[in-house]
Amino acid sequence: MNDFIFHNPDKVYFGKNQLCHLGEELLKFGKRVLLVYGGGSIKKYGLYDEIIKIAKDNDIELFELSGVEPNPRHTTANKGARICKEHNIDVILAAGGGSTIDCAKGVAAATLRDDCDVWPLVSGGVWVTEALPVIAILTNAATGSEMDGWSVISNMDTNEKIGMGGSALIPKVAFENPEYSYTLPRYQTACGAFDIFNHVIDNYYLAGDATFDLLLDMQEAVMRCVVKWTPVAMAEPENYEARANLMWASSMALNTILDGGTVHGCACHAMEHELSAYYDITHGHGLAIVTPRWLKYILSEETAPAIYRFGTKVFGIEEGLSPMEGANKAIDALYDFCENTLELKMHLSDLNIDETHFEAMANHACGGGPISGLKELFPADLVEIYKMCL
Amino acid sequence: MNDFIFHNPDKVYFGKNQLCHLGEELLKFGKRVLLVYGGGSIKKYGLYDEIIKIAKDNDIELFELSGVEPNPRHTTANKGARICKEHNIDVILAAGGGSTIDCAKGVAAATLRDDCDVWPLVSGGVWVTEALPVIAILTNAATGSEMDGWSVISNMDTNEKIGMGGSALIPKVAFENPEYSYTLPRYQTACGAFDIFNHVIDNYYLAGDATFDLLLDMQEAVMRCVVKWTPVAMAEPENYEARANLMWASSMALNTILDGGTVHGCACHAMEHELSAYYDITHGHGLAIVTPRWLKYILSEETAPAIYRFGTKVFGIEEGLSPMEGANKAIDALYDFCENTLELKMHLSDLNIDETHFEAMANHACGGGPISGLKELFPADLVEIYKMCL
Repeated sequence: MNDFIFHNPDKVYFGKNQLCHLGEELLKFGKRVLLVYGGGSIKKYGLYDEIIKIAKDNDIELFELSGVEPNPRHTTANKGARICKEHNIDVILAAGGGSTIDCAKGVAAATLRDDCDVWPLVSGGVWVTEALPVIAILTNAATGSEMDGWSVISNMDTNEKIGMGGSALIPKVAFENPEYSYTLPRYQTACGAFDIFNHVIDNYYLAGDATFDLLLDMQEAVMRCVVKWTPVAMAEPENYEARANLMWASSMALNTILDGGTVHGCACHAMEHELSAYYDITHGHGLAIVTPRWLKYILSEETAPAIYRFGTKVFGIEEGLSPMEGANKAIDALYDFCENTLELKMHLSDLNIDETHFEAMANHACGGGPISGLKELFPADLVEIYKMCL
Repeated sequence: MNDFIFHNPDKVYFGKNQLCHLGEELLKFGKRVLLVYGGGSIKKYGLYDEIIKIAKDNDIELFELSGVEPNPRHTTANKGARICKEHNIDVILAAGGGSTIDCAKGVAAATLRDDCDVWPLVSGGVWVTEALPVIAILTNAATGSEMDGWSVISNMDTNEKIGMGGSALIPKVAFENPEYSYTLPRYQTACGAFDIFNHVIDNYYLAGDATFDLLLDMQEAVMRCVVKWTPVAMAEPENYEARANLMWASSMALNTILDGGTVHGCACHAMEHELSAYYDITHGHGLAIVTPRWLKYILSEETAPAIYRFGTKVFGIEEGLSPMEGANKAIDALYDFCENTLELKMHLSDLNIDETHFEAMANHACGGGPISGLKELFPADLVEIYKMCL
């Protein structure tokens, strides 16, 4: 068991009737606010109008950065940073899913640079300790950005999608109203849910040489939650219980309460970021394709007990099998969940992706060293896993 | 499912090699520190010397309040507050178990009053939003005070033991080294563990009219952790894994991550505080006596499914029974755990407590209104439950 630090000062307002606190929270930071959002879906379901009204009622001056992409571009973040600098913005308000919040964090960090360019921070792996404050209104259970210190930014010129981290990137406040996710399409619901799931399994059972049982048990609870409630949310988009369980699972998966000294391999995330960077696919879909193949690839006598435990706890695989047999059943159950419950096409070829860039992607994902985790992975390993996904 | 706010800015350093950060964390608040501790056990196992050395190395001036009682007295907190005022203390460092940390919080709140008296805040139910900063070094997995906003203070003149709450009472930083709990006697280990357990069950399954499944699942994980690891810690006091799981369970049980809109009944805690106030017994022991009787008393067709679920998830009671039969088995399993695994005597008469004060205690515990929860409880109900404990 490894030592760890837990520190997450984000203040979360969760539930139906919480946006009434938005004004007071914004005003703690100032009256000049940059509203960041995506393609305008917040206009369709009334959230935009609510924000405008709250701003007016509180004498807040609102500026806007709209059109944030699903894989948010560094150029968009930079545009936002220039607006912040020009208008002396005090606080950034992100309203949307993980991409919008990630972009807002990019804006927050880039604004404090003379050149308003986020990319040197992202590509340089700089740990961000200074940024404008971000307040998030979450509309999609997926990335965990509403409670984490990460921002994933894409540079389509260089085919790079990289996570930028830092204590200053944790939102100061997050509003999580499960109702805002009612309009989310079936496919996006499934992809978001698998993103949550993978955030947990990417760091599962890796707590050093002793068992941090409580942590594993809580990790499994989040994965069980995804397995149970995602099909409900897909079938009944306005089921509050399903949306609420998934939204809180999104936050729990990455607010570091489940970290507890685990070794952050994030092998699947590293591999998927490459897929998104080259092919601009939906992140959670890419993860669903990669994850069962990754588990199959790392399966060995050594890793089988952990994978089998996962299967029993999350998919109800029976006890008493050999570790290897149990682990194989666990992986099959996960694949079946992705294909038949989440209804995701499970081959890269389904997304028109072939081997062309596998080697470059594998090298970039490893970033010069192996990926840690249940099993260390080198670029040659990643190429093999990508091939299994074809 | 109810709306809720989650906000816990406490920074936790968990593990074996974290005290090296104590100096830097204290210095964020200042150089004049009041060290609060209990009966001197921190001297026996070297923690006191470590703190003295760290203070010296960082040019920190240390003042002391020692002799904090197991049920900390308001008079002790007031004494500490006068020291703080006299010496312009910047930050309070608590080193010990929950009682010591609670007392430190009392000191922190009382110092900001002209009369240095914590009791008006405690007895007046004042929500504390201003206090000196507290940093905690935890030596006992039990109360959760290391991560919560509560301080339970006793007034032995009036036989009152009352919780004082407030956002300002959350420690700024907590150090949790499971090794510090190695010297804890078997009885104290058991009592602390049951305190953790009860913090969860006192708020279990109360999330309004819809199921907050993820929350329940995480609550059950903490209770399972107590059931699994307490006997190990009792049998092998220096088992790091056991001590670490219990210590993190202590923090998880009360850092509000498991609150999520539950209705805070805390019936057992309310009843036990009276027992401690009148008879100065060990808190966790009193809880172990009260909890199964409380469950038995509130058992009905309405509450049986929740209690049965608890039994299946925490004690492995078989599925498929009638709710009432399953609930009874769950309560029996809990009683058996307290009596035979935790080795706690399960009758108030074992602690020389008779009916003398039951009525006064019941009235005071209800504080003018019923206790909310799975079933509303009035003073007459509490008298019945106390009688079941005889």
